[in-house]
Amino acid sequence: MRVEQLWSNVRLATLRGDLPGLGAIEDGLIAAIGERIVYAGPRADAPRLEAETTHDCEGRWITPGLIDCHTHLVYAGNRAREFELRLEGASYEAIARSGGGIVSTMTATRAASREQLAAEALPRLDAMLAEGITTVEIKSGYGLSQADEIKMLEAARALGQARAVNVAATFLGAHALPPEFAGNSDGYVDAVCTQMIPAVADLADAVDAFCEGIAFSTAQVRRVFQAAAAHGLPVKLHAEQLSNLQGAALAAEFGALSADHLEHLDAAGVDAMARAGTVAVLLPGAFYFTRETRLPPIDALRCAGVPIAIATDCNPGTSPLTSPLLAMNMAATLFRLTVNECIAGMTREAARALGRLDSVGTLEPGKRCDLAIWDIGEPAELVYRMGFNPLHARIFGGKP
Amino acid sequence: MRVEQLWSNVRLATLRGDLPGLGAIEDGLIAAIGERIVYAGPRADAPRLEAETTHDCEGRWITPGLIDCHTHLVYAGNRAREFELRLEGASYEAIARSGGGIVSTMTATRAASREQLAAEALPRLDAMLAEGITTVEIKSGYGLSQADEIKMLEAARALGQARAVNVAATFLGAHALPPEFAGNSDGYVDAVCTQMIPAVADLADAVDAFCEGIAFSTAQVRRVFQAAAAHGLPVKLHAEQLSNLQGAALAAEFGALSADHLEHLDAAGVDAMARAGTVAVLLPGAFYFTRETRLPPIDALRCAGVPIAIATDCNPGTSPLTSPLLAMNMAATLFRLTVNECIAGMTREAARALGRLDSVGTLEPGKRCDLAIWDIGEPAELVYRMGFNPLHARIFGGKP
Ligand SMILES: [Zn+2]
Ligand SMILES: [Zn+2]
Repeated sequence: MRVEQLWSNVRLATLRGDLPGLGAIEDGLIAAIGERIVYAGPRADAPRLEAETTHDCEGRWITPGLIDCHTHLVYAGNRAREFELRLEGASYEAIARSGGGIVSTMTATRAASREQLAAEALPRLDAMLAEGITTVEIKSGYGLSQADEIKMLEAARALGQARAVNVAATFLGAHALPPEFAGNSDGYVDAVCTQMIPAVADLADAVDAFCEGIAFSTAQVRRVFQAAAAHGLPVKLHAEQLSNLQGAALAAEFGALSADHLEHLDAAGVDAMARAGTVAVLLPGAFYFTRETRLPPIDALRCAGVPIAIATDCNPGTSPLTSPLLAMNMAATLFRLTVNECIAGMTREAARALGRLDSVGTLEPGKRCDLAIWDIGEPAELVYRMGFNPLHARIFGGKP
Repeated sequence: MRVEQLWSNVRLATLRGDLPGLGAIEDGLIAAIGERIVYAGPRADAPRLEAETTHDCEGRWITPGLIDCHTHLVYAGNRAREFELRLEGASYEAIARSGGGIVSTMTATRAASREQLAAEALPRLDAMLAEGITTVEIKSGYGLSQADEIKMLEAARALGQARAVNVAATFLGAHALPPEFAGNSDGYVDAVCTQMIPAVADLADAVDAFCEGIAFSTAQVRRVFQAAAAHGLPVKLHAEQLSNLQGAALAAEFGALSADHLEHLDAAGVDAMARAGTVAVLLPGAFYFTRETRLPPIDALRCAGVPIAIATDCNPGTSPLTSPLLAMNMAATLFRLTVNECIAGMTREAARALGRLDSVGTLEPGKRCDLAIWDIGEPAELVYRMGFNPLHARIFGGKP
């Protein structure tokens, strides 16, 4: 077989679902034609491959390109000062008075142009790409008006043009109540359902919401999900982060791609997710940064066979984290996920959480040739180290 | 005044002890001749400066080059597999049987040449330099024989030749009991005091020990400190990490540069440190990685006026951390240090902990021109973000 690119002398973590653990192959080959993998497997089993370009990987490991399936990467402004004030003992009221909180991010995001939003997000995206990310989900949710939400989604799309990365754009209009609708959250949900979702239907890949006492009720989220379904958009949910409103069960009822956070998830929620095939997206960066002490029900999720993904939740308020490797370390250290669960959680299971498992997340023929090539002796090093980046090269659609 | 290098259009965090907070100067200048700062202060107060080379910093912030005052950067081998096994529920016995633990690091370190040790440490050092480190302390302590301890110290010195960084080398022979002395820890302490310390006196900048139930007793550490004093070497101590043996008070009695870890430090230890001027070196990476829950007595240290430094404790067993920025974030998030305390803790106070405050750690005339230039809007960003590196440039001895 004639192929364009061939990576040889390489150890593969294929993440193939039909192989145990990481689907590791000690002496592997990957071949690509155009953007697609045409062979990924043992050298011994490979057909005869004639390659235009062969890359000797000198025994390095290749994993699927990493996937961050939950980020709020696009926003303007800075909450570092708020972080500083809180460490100095300032009350939430004092911080609100000094212009902090999500409203400050909304205000700065509304004031920024689409181009400014993309430019501010670019260094954050670049930090992720430098650690092997090839697919990233980016949510709106700081505009909170139709025009500003569209602007955020367009900025997310622009990032996918500016860099070699797959972008999944998620509409998160139901993130917080904008000041125009103070005291009238049902009115805002009306606007989300009847105006915004129709307007973003061609721009967004999915619809998300924040189901929480400080955000939107399950009844309101149900209406958002119904509007999303009416426009053919899959849904996902910020659920059970601070309390248990049975948001995950609601998400499962709508066949949601994922329910995310889940520190307060109960047994009924676990069962509902398992039956629906909804992915549990765990966000240890937010757990760490907010000094949460209640752990998500990891064992229950495992026992029920709920797929587990891990993401950075990169956002200015509760997880200013741009390192997928650190997200994996936190998932291991704080949540006690195994190394294999961590790596699967930022590849195969993250792809599943984005509804893209047909095209990314594992090393298999027919999938995009999105690869991360690592200077490591064993996969555990990706999870074990803190603040060290062993990426040797990132391949996107077959191209370095 | 004619100067060689001039950095203009810059905001300075001078860390000068006579100024409050970070000693910030909004419109500053730094001028250098050779390796030394000759001016660091407000532009308005500067003498007339004629520079060979002027660097327009475009409003960026400059801090002193960061200082990591507690690392075990030089070692061979890898403990990622041990980390993986532990996450899979392996007992300590099973890990020991599979060759894990500090003995595995000792074995690999003994088997490595000085050149191999330096080569293995170099990527870790480079990760630190990429985040603005200009001075790093490196301990021995995995050789545990005279020849192997000397080899480690020489590897540390070699790193200071291979890269533009100040290296402080610390002899930590009393780190763990080598198998040759099993059941005879006093015999090993004899060797440390009568053979090793004399042999390393010209190679090491200081002597450290690990005072703990699983390591060496206060009586044994006293002997190590007496030997160090007899050879004119300052001392420091791993103290009160897992239990309270009053190691910090012992360190203070010997005028130690620092006592490090300190989760179990009591009021008497705080008082002793305050009286002796011994720096408290906090190591939040080890606290995080080992899932410690007992916090060091931060408020008591503050109230007593004990200087507080922060370090990575980079080591393969309990803190595989090579990011000084993440160490600061952990100190803030986990220990609730303020932004100013975190930044002072990796500059001025870290210099104090190394006995080098006369030459590094602040931006002042006469000190080395070791600078970190940052793409940030405010110093809090250095502490607030996780896994993001805003370093614009690192200047070592006046040279980019
Ligand atoms: Zn989120
Ligand atoms: Zn240490």
